[in-house]
Amino acid sequence: MDHQQPNHGATAQAGRQPVVGMVGAGQLARMTAAAAVGLGIRFRVLAAAPDESAAQVSAETMLGDYRSTDDLLAFAAGCDVITFDHEHVPQPQLAALEQAGHVVRPGPAALRLTQDKLVMRERLTSLGVPCPRFEPVSSVADVVAFAELTSWPVVLKAVSGGYDGRGVWVCRSPADAGVVLSHGLTLLAEEYVPFERELAVLIARSPGGHGAAYPVVQSVQRDGICVEVLAPAPQLSEVMAMDAQQLGLELARDLDVTGLLAVELFQTRSGGLLVNELAMRPHNTGHWTIDGALTSQFEQHLRAVLNLPLGSPLATSPVAVMANVLGGTDPDLYGKLNHVMAADTGLKVQLYGKPVRPGRKVGHVTALGGSLAQARDRARRAANYLATGAEDSAAEPLATEGARA
Amino acid sequence: MDHQQPNHGATAQAGRQPVVGMVGAGQLARMTAAAAVGLGIRFRVLAAAPDESAAQVSAETMLGDYRSTDDLLAFAAGCDVITFDHEHVPQPQLAALEQAGHVVRPGPAALRLTQDKLVMRERLTSLGVPCPRFEPVSSVADVVAFAELTSWPVVLKAVSGGYDGRGVWVCRSPADAGVVLSHGLTLLAEEYVPFERELAVLIARSPGGHGAAYPVVQSVQRDGICVEVLAPAPQLSEVMAMDAQQLGLELARDLDVTGLLAVELFQTRSGGLLVNELAMRPHNTGHWTIDGALTSQFEQHLRAVLNLPLGSPLATSPVAVMANVLGGTDPDLYGKLNHVMAADTGLKVQLYGKPVRPGRKVGHVTALGGSLAQARDRARRAANYLATGAEDSAAEPLATEGARA
Repeated sequence: MDHQQPNHGATAQAGRQPVVGMVGAGQLARMTAAAAVGLGIRFRVLAAAPDESAAQVSAETMLGDYRSTDDLLAFAAGCDVITFDHEHVPQPQLAALEQAGHVVRPGPAALRLTQDKLVMRERLTSLGVPCPRFEPVSSVADVVAFAELTSWPVVLKAVSGGYDGRGVWVCRSPADAGVVLSHGLTLLAEEYVPFERELAVLIARSPGGHGAAYPVVQSVQRDGICVEVLAPAPQLSEVMAMDAQQLGLELARDLDVTGLLAVELFQTRSGGLLVNELAMRPHNTGHWTIDGALTSQFEQHLRAVLNLPLGSPLATSPVAVMANVLGGTDPDLYGKLNHVMAADTGLKVQLYGKPVRPGRKVGHVTALGGSLAQARDRARRAANYLATGAEDSAAEPLATEGARA
Repeated sequence: MDHQQPNHGATAQAGRQPVVGMVGAGQLARMTAAAAVGLGIRFRVLAAAPDESAAQVSAETMLGDYRSTDDLLAFAAGCDVITFDHEHVPQPQLAALEQAGHVVRPGPAALRLTQDKLVMRERLTSLGVPCPRFEPVSSVADVVAFAELTSWPVVLKAVSGGYDGRGVWVCRSPADAGVVLSHGLTLLAEEYVPFERELAVLIARSPGGHGAAYPVVQSVQRDGICVEVLAPAPQLSEVMAMDAQQLGLELARDLDVTGLLAVELFQTRSGGLLVNELAMRPHNTGHWTIDGALTSQFEQHLRAVLNLPLGSPLATSPVAVMANVLGGTDPDLYGKLNHVMAADTGLKVQLYGKPVRPGRKVGHVTALGGSLAQARDRARRAANYLATGAEDSAAEPLATEGARA
């Protein structure tokens, strides 16, 4: 009896099975691996370590560094298409993959926009897409000048590398700005938008230009981290929902995205929509689609990058609420499953196999149903119990006015 | 860069992740592997070859022979529970696993009933469960004597080893019976039941005795192979549906099943229910639950054998129709996905990564909706196209009277 080696010989026997290689092995790759099973394709991940989330469940894991051109080229050998569970592969390495003849989806030009917030905002502005006013800044004087155009507070953002609230600072004074500037990062200043709430629209786009838009959702944040997603966004007018979907579809076309495009939006107090952030991969605001839509975002991403026809993005339930399980102090998530499953037999749980660290996304739960209030309550209670072992927690207020930080 | 070795060290880092070992690496293990991803557990398969269906998608595949006690013991080392994607592990090997302290679910005594049709029928009879009359036979004279009690035709069945119509013969004369007897198999004779249709009920049962019953489905057979499953069974009275579920729950209890129990039933022309076959694993008649029920049978099986609370078996759609993709002559299934997905964006496809052989189950499709006729049509067209590349096929008649062969 032997441990199995990766099945590089399986293709011929089972007909043509295309091979998708995903760079990165976090939970997005893990959930994509599960979706790949049904499509009868082969799925590889490039992992930094054998215990990463997706590496635990993938038959064809390769260990390597996404910053190493050699590792990327070795990983891409034999893959029909290369895609990503994060946006951190540097541009020269992406170019090397393309120059070697590999199919990279989304392509380097599209990915660049998610790697450099300044480039992204300049591009959005040139397209006439509404987004908060912004300016590159490199000194307190720059920030003060920007604040004279907008007003305090001013949001400072790292141009690259930030996620989940990291790399974002709300500065209420020149002194605040000075502290942020002292980190030595490349920054941009952004108008502080007193938004009513945060929305997101998820788009899939295939190489041939076909697009599909998922229902617009609301994301509820705490300390800059998404804690809940409500699908569909409650009390959103049909007109505004269609506007957001149209905006997303046009952006995916204009930015030439292949695969998924998640567009995070601010709904302002005056009812307008501003683009906050873009991501070109499966996205936290789309996790509800695993259980609540005809085609999960993970299957959809695979279909798009494989140039298969896109699946229906329609919801299968009137309401779906996804709540992230943010790590607490107890490392044993699995031990708390029993209670959560006994309390709610209809709840859907995803655990990512990641070591628990305080505040880290280590899983999520989704509650489906007819009532938003009930689904929120179920999802929040379960996520909170998994995180902390405590019976309940206060709901996040749905009007998240001004609470961006 | 290296290929990854199985992650035997992953447990400590991510808290307690139980390890489920499934003996067998066919499509049932493959779909169970996908379900294991969400539960955050570790899942191993024992495969005969590295290109088997589940081995293609499992991070922790071991190669070995399910008939070898040594291989089974090596596989079970480090697993918290051993379960099965088939019922063929011999009793002495099962006993050896238990004697070595391994947790085996379902247990050997329950599995024995699925390994020996005569033992199963004797046990059902002793429990007062209605099933077709039967008798062990070893000569034409035995068959003739049985036919005098029932009538011709007589169904002869191999006591062990049959599946998907193999090991079942409808004999219309002593001469027919003589041909079957000449194979030298251990046989039983069974009353030929002129049934109205075939139903199935899927039960999950946990070690503590909790049970859950899925909606009763109708299976549509062709040449003894299931081609379609209609969920729920159309025009089944609520009383009969509850009778079937009750029968299944009682059987699971009386036979001490842990995990899934699939009960295949004949609905007779007089409206009664007879038990035809039992299986103690995920079952073809439950594939619709991946897309059409709150808890898929694969997740449910894992929850049961892990002694986690069972999930809700409720349907999420008024109608789900699953159609098997039975291999044709074209080995390239994947190449036909494009057409099927373009024609029906809401269709759910599962391909098993198995080499195509005529008549072999190589995938399935599920159509959800509000109309049985439409869902059947969609599922049948898609399955037929994937199998043959042809645009359409005649529907199987829903009244499958007497067409057992």
